[in-house]
Amino acid sequence: MTMTAETAATPRPRVVGDREVEILQAAIDVLRDVGYDRLTFDAVAAAARASKATLYRRWPHKRDLIIDCVSLFMDAPAEQEPNTGCLRDDLLAQACAAGGLDDDVVVGAWGALLPVIHRDPLLAEGLRTRFVEPKTAAGRAVLRSAQARGEIGADADLDTLVTILPALLIHEAMLTGQRPRAERIAQLVDSVVLPACAATLTCRPGAGA
Amino acid sequence: MTMTAETAATPRPRVVGDREVEILQAAIDVLRDVGYDRLTFDAVAAAARASKATLYRRWPHKRDLIIDCVSLFMDAPAEQEPNTGCLRDDLLAQACAAGGLDDDVVVGAWGALLPVIHRDPLLAEGLRTRFVEPKTAAGRAVLRSAQARGEIGADADLDTLVTILPALLIHEAMLTGQRPRAERIAQLVDSVVLPACAATLTCRPGAGA
Repeated sequence: MTMTAETAATPRPRVVGDREVEILQAAIDVLRDVGYDRLTFDAVAAAARASKATLYRRWPHKRDLIIDCVSLFMDAPAEQEPNTGCLRDDLLAQACAAGGLDDDVVVGAWGALLPVIHRDPLLAEGLRTRFVEPKTAAGRAVLRSAQARGEIGADADLDTLVTILPALLIHEAMLTGQRPRAERIAQLVDSVVLPACAATLTCRPGAGA
Repeated sequence: MTMTAETAATPRPRVVGDREVEILQAAIDVLRDVGYDRLTFDAVAAAARASKATLYRRWPHKRDLIIDCVSLFMDAPAEQEPNTGCLRDDLLAQACAAGGLDDDVVVGAWGALLPVIHRDPLLAEGLRTRFVEPKTAAGRAVLRSAQARGEIGADADLDTLVTILPALLIHEAMLTGQRPRAERIAQLVDSVVLPACAATLTCRPGAGA
């Protein structure tokens, strides 16, 4: 899959040129194939038909390259601000915004990064600020709107609610090697996320002043 | 952490000797430190103060060694058959059965395996049959008992319900580097798993013959 100038021009955290997108795409391919530990600038340069000097000028360390990969490719603009007026539709719009990448790229890249996050604090920090936090903030915004409409209780633990769907989707992707399709996402929303949200509206035993 | 003969003697899927447990413990340490791709029999032999010949006699390929590691160390006997007569207590008993390993060992070892599962079908198959399926079967047994008691609807999708808690626990462990403690597990059971189970008891729009 190659990205065109048109798709690269949609709003993103950073504006990057076509050539940079090609290099990041090549880096994700290498990451997926050999893992983070064995990823070298030599391999990325060869895959992107770029010089190592070009890579090092832009990314001092491979962690910088990979953080750019993730924040560039894993985000889908459409998921940022769904506003349908209905929690279920907002959740589906957000979770089904696929970002245009193939399953094996996303699953492979995520799988390659999970094991090294705890071995590299700077990588962990970069992924947290550039990827996890923006995603969580977008999810929390959807829940806050639902809270304002009365679909979620005022004292609900949004931090827990916001992680349910990503946790289920990532878990299923890791076990099956494929990201869940729209129909499956809807099943998970209907059978897990919405019941958990609805439960925040009812009186809980032991709750209250 | 070292395992004593006493802990190694509790019921497990396979009976292994003390020396084998020591080697598997050393292999997990190496796995966590360098990842699966860079794990070598040289490194495991050095860490376990064993000869490579000893290792190769028992495990023809490093995937065999790692599959034994996972099925030996990741299972906790206590989680197999909780039977308290109450879904909530069964879920907590199962999820809180820690197996005696330190957080960084479990989180590190799992994180090291996730990225390679899809690159090695034999490893995937071994982990599936020796680890994922027994765990899923134990979880499904708890749900079936609850279903028989009327705590879960007769037509509930147990395959989805059984994955909720593992997905949430693994997700949180990967993001924080620590396994959730008993109090947090109880929060997740109360705010997510039990509402999803309870929702299977109510009439759903469009459901029915």
